[in-house]
Amino acid sequence: MPYIKPLPSSNYYAVIFSSTKEEDRLGYAEMDELMMKLAHEQDGFLGYESINNGNTGIFISYWENKGSIEKWRINTTHKMAKDQAKNWYKRYLSQICLVESSHEFVK
Amino acid sequence: MPYIKPLPSSNYYAVIFSSTKEEDRLGYAEMDELMMKLAHEQDGFLGYESINNGNTGIFISYWENKGSIEKWRINTTHKMAKDQAKNWYKRYLSQICLVESSHEFVK
Repeated sequence: MPYIKPLPSSNYYAVIFSSTKEEDRLGYAEMDELMMKLAHEQDGFLGYESINNGNTGIFISYWENKGSIEKWRINTTHKMAKDQAKNWYKRYLSQICLVESSHEFVK
Repeated sequence: MPYIKPLPSSNYYAVIFSSTKEEDRLGYAEMDELMMKLAHEQDGFLGYESINNGNTGIFISYWENKGSIEKWRINTTHKMAKDQAKNWYKRYLSQICLVESSHEFVK
């Protein structure tokens, strides 16, 4: 999974974005690529996990603190992307979460 | 997504389980089915979302409060399943999260 920094063991943030996309989503791929690039440049961005299957997907981004999520939330280009989200998605659920504890196992 | 109760708009819990499974995972499918059945019977279980693609997956369960997660954590049958997890998974990350805010869009 593409973490850019190791996740702490507690007290960081996860933004869970689960969605069902439209079949037809003109301009989505380019915007998605731009958003990934810009997110990686944000202070406090720790990395992400993403799984897609057909038109459904779960995308989770990880952040050092709530302030870094807030700064990204009000980023002008990110806002432009979100204005188009209702064209691209049939449904989404966006959840801002404080990760209270985390446990990793790697063989 | 299979919620058994509507998610509140804030202050509930998500357990994010992201994983890469082994190719060979004898007994996994039966145990997975049993765990889903038992989880649904737990007090405070709100529902789940799950996406798999090949051997990677993200499974998120939702809970009313931390007490309900703790009761499920120490459930004897659930503990038996977890004892076998290291045979079935190459890697997993389990995160217990307080959902501070949630926003849904449905077309």
